[in-house]
Formats: sequence, structure tokens, C-alpha cells
Amino acid sequence: MSNTQHVRIKDISAALAGQAVEVRGWLRNKPGGKGRYFLWLRDGSGEIQAVAEQSELSESVWADCERIGLESSIIATGTVRQHPKNPDECELLLTDIRVLQEVTDYPIGKKAHGVEFLMKNRHLWLRGAKQSAILRIRSEVQQAFADFFHRRGFYRVDTPIFTPNACEGTTTLFEVDYHGDTVFLAQSGQLYNEADIGALGQVYCFGPVFRAEKSKTRRHLLEFWMLEMEAAYYDHQDNMRFQEEMLAFTVRRVLNNCRADLKILGRDPAKLEPALVTPYPKLRYGECIEIVNDWRAGQLAQAREVGLDEARELLMSGKSVNIRDESFEDKSEQKQRISAFRWGDDFGAPDETAIGASHDRPVFVTNFPVEIKGFYFKDELNDDGTERIDPVFARLQANEPKLVVPGATGHTILGSDLIGSEGAGELIGGSQREDDLKRLEAKIRHHNLPPEFLEWYVDLRRYGNVPHAGFGLGLERTVAWLGGGSDNPLHLRETIAFPRMLHQYEP
Amino acid sequence: MSNTQHVRIKDISAALAGQAVEVRGWLRNKPGGKGRYFLWLRDGSGEIQAVAEQSELSESVWADCERIGLESSIIATGTVRQHPKNPDECELLLTDIRVLQEVTDYPIGKKAHGVEFLMKNRHLWLRGAKQSAILRIRSEVQQAFADFFHRRGFYRVDTPIFTPNACEGTTTLFEVDYHGDTVFLAQSGQLYNEADIGALGQVYCFGPVFRAEKSKTRRHLLEFWMLEMEAAYYDHQDNMRFQEEMLAFTVRRVLNNCRADLKILGRDPAKLEPALVTPYPKLRYGECIEIVNDWRAGQLAQAREVGLDEARELLMSGKSVNIRDESFEDKSEQKQRISAFRWGDDFGAPDETAIGASHDRPVFVTNFPVEIKGFYFKDELNDDGTERIDPVFARLQANEPKLVVPGATGHTILGSDLIGSEGAGELIGGSQREDDLKRLEAKIRHHNLPPEFLEWYVDLRRYGNVPHAGFGLGLERTVAWLGGGSDNPLHLRETIAFPRMLHQYEP
Repeated sequence: MSNTQHVRIKDISAALAGQAVEVRGWLRNKPGGKGRYFLWLRDGSGEIQAVAEQSELSESVWADCERIGLESSIIATGTVRQHPKNPDECELLLTDIRVLQEVTDYPIGKKAHGVEFLMKNRHLWLRGAKQSAILRIRSEVQQAFADFFHRRGFYRVDTPIFTPNACEGTTTLFEVDYHGDTVFLAQSGQLYNEADIGALGQVYCFGPVFRAEKSKTRRHLLEFWMLEMEAAYYDHQDNMRFQEEMLAFTVRRVLNNCRADLKILGRDPAKLEPALVTPYPKLRYGECIEIVNDWRAGQLAQAREVGLDEARELLMSGKSVNIRDESFEDKSEQKQRISAFRWGDDFGAPDETAIGASHDRPVFVTNFPVEIKGFYFKDELNDDGTERIDPVFARLQANEPKLVVPGATGHTILGSDLIGSEGAGELIGGSQREDDLKRLEAKIRHHNLPPEFLEWYVDLRRYGNVPHAGFGLGLERTVAWLGGGSDNPLHLRETIAFPRMLHQYEP
Repeated sequence: MSNTQHVRIKDISAALAGQAVEVRGWLRNKPGGKGRYFLWLRDGSGEIQAVAEQSELSESVWADCERIGLESSIIATGTVRQHPKNPDECELLLTDIRVLQEVTDYPIGKKAHGVEFLMKNRHLWLRGAKQSAILRIRSEVQQAFADFFHRRGFYRVDTPIFTPNACEGTTTLFEVDYHGDTVFLAQSGQLYNEADIGALGQVYCFGPVFRAEKSKTRRHLLEFWMLEMEAAYYDHQDNMRFQEEMLAFTVRRVLNNCRADLKILGRDPAKLEPALVTPYPKLRYGECIEIVNDWRAGQLAQAREVGLDEARELLMSGKSVNIRDESFEDKSEQKQRISAFRWGDDFGAPDETAIGASHDRPVFVTNFPVEIKGFYFKDELNDDGTERIDPVFARLQANEPKLVVPGATGHTILGSDLIGSEGAGELIGGSQREDDLKRLEAKIRHHNLPPEFLEWYVDLRRYGNVPHAGFGLGLERTVAWLGGGSDNPLHLRETIAFPRMLHQYEP
């Protein structure tokens, strides 16, 4: 059998009909018996059915077919032919088999297992049809990103993991003893990318980032992968255009190259197609306040079984009201306090769902209040260089002051969050960066950041300062949106091979 | 000037001759004066000369040309024309300029700076012609790897950084407090990749790895990037074939796409061309003993100013001899002890240089003694399944027992190191993995590894065990070889944007 052509399952098509091929992989399942087995073979690239007919096989090959159990490793030879029921698919008529390892006690069966058992056996659970399909989509997404950046003339850089300072506060940092000094595991490569563009103009990095989330929920990954772009001579608008074009390109690649995987996941490709069309909708932060409050009133009305008007009145009273939201997996999260969303509040996950639900494709939320964003966001100014007051803020302050967080200025930044459709939440956060030296220094003081650690960063505004912008994309959330969305929502822990969560660092 | 076409410098070619283009970047240098400046413009993608003729420019534009210093950020417009002296290159005839920031006090000048100063100002040093050329090569290498794996149908996976166990000892591990538990920063993704192939067949990962090197030398990076491949149904030979084909593909890409950068680095492309031809030479470990001892004798003869025969006799006496090797940057390393290389010794960096010097392309050293390799290497066996005794070992033990490390068995493994040419050292380490359950368990015991942490790894041999192989490639060393080699050797710290070394974690 060693003379037969070895083919990967994904490459078996009608073009090979009538030919003998060799498949090297594992047995996924074995329905049949009484003279005929349907051997479901998988090799990592896909799955194919090999029909084993007792009448066509030698006694020893048939005996092998009878004895092998799930996840036995086998090399099978067969003749390619059209699948009798699914003319788009092929199957094999088995001619020979070599059993490398007979397995009869594979621990993951067809019965439903609890999450704890599956996570403990993640090294085996990965082989499941759904889990491996997710990982193939993840791989395609990564290659699509790399290709998009390469075609646009961007250079890949690798930003450091060990960092002396934190750009967004220190409460969720992992510390490392670095030969007697304390350093932190990076939560972003952005500041370094801003230096890298001085050398390379347009760059991206892709690597792990770390957040020591203390939340008891199992929704957060403590280690996840982030794609970060930075480009010299890009403004806020260029930045959003790049993001939407990159995402449309990636969606196209997944639709073209991962059809079989989407099918395994029960993911309807039609729901991703709107994201192929750019530009994506853009909503200013101020415009979202009403959307979020409408949605919160709806939630409250449902929970309290009251009319929408009454719920709205309750919401606007300025107090917070308890409701129960059973969509959360963890009981501890189901008890929710709900109150009116005010200018100056930051969006929570349900708010992002509400905003995302208003469109069939990802939507940008732009121009957030300066108070809720990091020190490096560029201020939105009037043409004369004075600080702009957002008109929604002005209207709220005049007419509905309860809907304004005390102390809010109405000043906004030139940045955006890209919210995925179907409740996917924030996929990308980006902005033009503050390139006014004095404003940047003032913000560093205002945020109480240690200026000595940022001296090098401020240098970038002193020597060859240029307008520039960039963004960060969370890979796991993007994969969850692409592979699951609202059809069969994926848990973040399924979107990476070996997730790291609170109390979960094995295997 | 905003109507003029913005072009990146790398895309300016003779095809654009006579056209007006806009370049957005920085001023690298400004030779000239008295009616004419040569503005050396860079934009991260490359460098071009813009000729500013006072007679052709408005007074204000000329004044701008006069006042701007190095690293000023400027948008320049000009007409493309052939460079008068280098017909392969283009230059611009400047027509307009917009100065975004005038810089007159850029801290890095044309005079030579010390390493300490440059490292402290790495965020600016990066912009240097040489440093940015290295980073462009690094980026091309990464994209070439990704493309090669994608074309071969490999899937990219991301292996975890937080790991509970160490696969190669614990002396150089960084520890992290993980909400009360101790975890370690990964030094390899291999064990996880071995699980991933059960799901995906053929995989690679690419990410940072960490070694808490306590060496006082400045040669080691504590954080570096590793490419790791793993494939089901691959044996030792398949593994080496994949490595050499991948490297040849990558060298081709660098030669095609990074000509300008190689030129900046003074790297002779002709020295890389032999690496385009596969297969690469292969030497068994046993065959290298003589090569290394010849080289050591030569070193000794030179240091002691004695003849080669006398040096060889001294070397084979069984004692170690002091010499001074001034090729080491750090004085503390220059004092070397030299003795005969014995069966069972591991190669040091100079030995690898000696082995690499014997060929004009990378060379595989294969079949190391089992004693000096990790627990997961597959044993080399006779056809009947008994342990093979290496013939070189047998000969040495019989005739020159001083050249055998006490206790060495003569047993070997199915693995290889790929040694770069021109003193590049080990670029890749790879092997077929031990897939015999009993042998693997014995090795885990023999290496005193905590079996409870490896239970999941051993599971992979219990359920659907297959022959498999893989390797790990150090990105920084590979970039140093490609971009520097023996022409203008690159320091590892130059091959990554923000290197992390002992006492070096800023900026």
C-alpha cells in the first residue's frame, strides 16, 4: 500500500474519482456492522467516510475494521468515489487498512461531558469536530491578517512582553521577578508600535497579552492574542477605513476557505456576508446613549413585567433597579443592577450587544468622552484648535442633567470601537494618537502615570512627530464572532487551543 | 500639493519617471548647501534622495529646506527621475515641502555612540538605516514562514505562555504568581503542539519564549521568538526535508524582496545563494567529533604558538588547557578552557562554528547521544527493535576511551540540529518524538520529571498514537544569519525591536 498516493482529506475531490488514495489519520466514528462499516476518517484537515465492505476485503482487513475503536490511528487506502447521498462530497471505498494503534477506551465518548471534564482533557477534546473546526478558522483568520498587512506594505514587528510600565493602569498586571527587578507582562504593544513606525512607517504586531482578571466569572481569558496596527500619517478616518477593509478581507477568506468548518459549527455564512461590504456604519458615542437607554428600558420592562413607558420613567428616575439576567452562565452574574446610561459612562457587554443589534454588520462607535479613554487618545478639536463640546452632551446638560456623569466636560477623542454584529461585542479598539506634546504631557500628569517610564514615549513627539493612528483587535473575540455569532455562540475558551482562565492553567 | 499621488518610497521606480509624487516621512540627512541640498528622505519602506535646487523653489520652500534638521518630519513633493550616478535608482527633483515638525536637536548624530547610549535610546536608534533594514528582513522572514506553512496545508496554533510544567529543566524559568499558584513562562510550545496535531494533523506556532539566563554575557536574549512545527506521520527524515525546504524558500524570499536592505547591511547575497539548493549536508554527531577536535587543536596551536601535532597531543592528554579568545565581546568570556571533545559532550557555540565552517550552506548534525537530549526524543533502534550502538562510539570506546564521557551508552536519537553557515550557530533543533509509551515513561522517570504534570502528554501515546516529528527555529539567530552572517555580523540585540537582556528591559 505504500505506493498509493498519500492525500490529505481536504484535497480529496471529484477530480480524484476512481483513483486509489491513502489517508493517514484517526477513526472518528464507525457506524454500521453486519458486513459493512462506515469508517469516519479524519486527518486534521477534514473528514471523509470510508465504506468497508466485508465482501470486498481480506479477512484480516475486515477483522481490523471490526476491532478498531474511536481514535484508533490508522492508515487507510481506498478508491475515491462520489458520495451516493451528497453529490457534492466524496467518499472512499476501502481497500486496505493499517492499524498503527488500536484504541478501545477513548475517554471522550458520544455522551455529553461537563465543561470541567472537557477542560481537564483539553488535549483530547481538541480533536472533536467542533473544536478542530474552530481552530482551523482561527488559523485562516491569522493568515488572512498577515496577508492583508503584507499586501498593504506593512511590516510585522514583535513588541516586548516584559515591560517596565503599564499604559492602562496596574490593577490587572502580572508581575515577574526579573533578576531582582519587577517587570510586568505586557497588555499591549501599542506604545512600542508608535516607536516602530518611526523606523518602518506602517507596522503591526501580533502576540499574547496578559490580564490578571480577578473576576470570578469564567468568561475572561487571562492570556489572549492581540493584533495591533500602527501607521504614520494616518488619521482617525484612515484608521477606521483600514479596519473595515481588513475585516471584510478576512471575512471573505473565511467564507471562501472555511465553508466545511462553518457547516460543522452550524454557522450560517449568509450572516457574515453583510460584513463584506464597506464602509461599516459609524455612530458617535453621543448617538448611542439613546440606543442603550431604549434597550435598558426594554430589559427593565421585561424583568418587571411593566409597560415600556413605565420602565423608561423608572430608568430615568436616576436610581438603579435590580433585574435578573439568566443569559449569564455564572449565577453570580445574573443579578444585574440597571440604571440609565449617562454621558460619561462606559459601555458594558450588554450595551455593546444592543448597539451591535441595530445593524447586520460591525458598527463603529466613535468620539468617546475624553474621560473614559486612555492618555494617548487624540483630542477632537474645533478647526480653530479650541476644545470641541459634543452637541449631544450640550443638549443633555441643558435638558436632562441626570444623564450626565458629574464632572464630564463634553470633550471627545478621535477614536473608535468596532462592535461586532450578533452580540459579538467589541472586536477592535482604535484611535488617532495624541501628537500634541503639551496635551500629551498634561494627560500623563492627569492620569497619574509615572512620567519617568514614559519619557521615551514622549520623545517620539519631540523628534520627528507625525500624525498617526492604530488599533488593537482581540483575536479570540473575532474568531467567536466568525465561527459562532448568534447561530451557535462560541465560548471564548473554545477559540484558543489551551485557554488560560482563573484557576485554569492545565494541561 | 494634496492632489499629488502619495507613493511609498519602495514603490518609486523608473516606471514613474516624469511623474509628480508625494513622499511622507522623515529627513535622514541633508548634504549640500549653497543653492542645492540633497534631502535624504525615508518613510520606513526605503530611502530616496530629493534634490532641492534653490533656483527652482519658492523662497519659503527653500527656507524650509535650510532650517530643517535630521529627523524632521516632512511631506515632500517632487518629480521622479533617474539618479544621474546610479542608473538603477531613482531620485526626486523637489517641487514643494511641508514641514510637520522641525527638529534641530536629534540626539543620535553621525558620530559613533556607545552600545549603552544606543540601547537606552532604542526607540530612536531603531530609525537608523541599518536597524530598520534588519527589522524589514525580520518581517519578510516571518511572512515567508507563514506563507510556507500555509501552502503546505499547516495550521497555525498559539500555544500557551503560562505553563504548569517545564519540559527542559527549571533552572532558567521565569515564575509568575497566578492568583496564588505558581506558573512558569513557556520555553517551548512543543508539548502542546504534539496535542494539537491530534486535532489538526500538521501545525506550527510562533510566539515569544523566555529564558531567565543568569549568564553575565550580553549575548543572550531573555525573551525571544520561536517558530515551532509539529506534524503527524512525519519521521526524522521528513522533518529534515521540511526544514531545508522551508529555509530555502525563506532565503529565496529575502533575496527577492530585501535586496536593498541586504545592501544597506553590506550583506553579500552570493553567500546566501548556496542555501537555496536542497538537500543540505547531513553529518552524524559521531562524524563531528573529529571535525571539532581538529578545530580545537588548531585553536590551541595558535594560542600556544606550537605545531598542530603538539597541540593535538596536548588536547588528547585528557586535561583541559587555558587559552584566550578575543573574539568574545565580553572580557569575562575571553578566557576559555579547551579540552578534547568527547562522545557525550554537547557542542558549544565555537564547535558549531567549526562544523558550520565546513560547508557553504546550513548543515544538519544528526543522531546525538541519547544522554544529552531531552526526554521526548525518539530512540534510534536497530531493525529488530533493539538499541543501536553507534559505530563511532564503539570505535572510540575500544581505541580511545579518553574520548568517551564516562557512562555514555552509545545509544542515539532520531533528531538533528541545523547549523547555519558562516558561524551562525544552531538555527533549528528538531526530532522525531518518542512514540513508544513504555520508553517515554521510562525517560520521564530517568529525567526526574514530575509525572503528574506530564500525564496529559503521555495520554497522547495512549489514544491515537502516531509517529510524528517537529522542530523549533530561533527567529533572531536566523535573522542574524540572513542579514549579517560573516559579512557584518549582527548582534542578537539588533535583530528584535526591543531586546530584553540581563538588566535591559527599558524602554
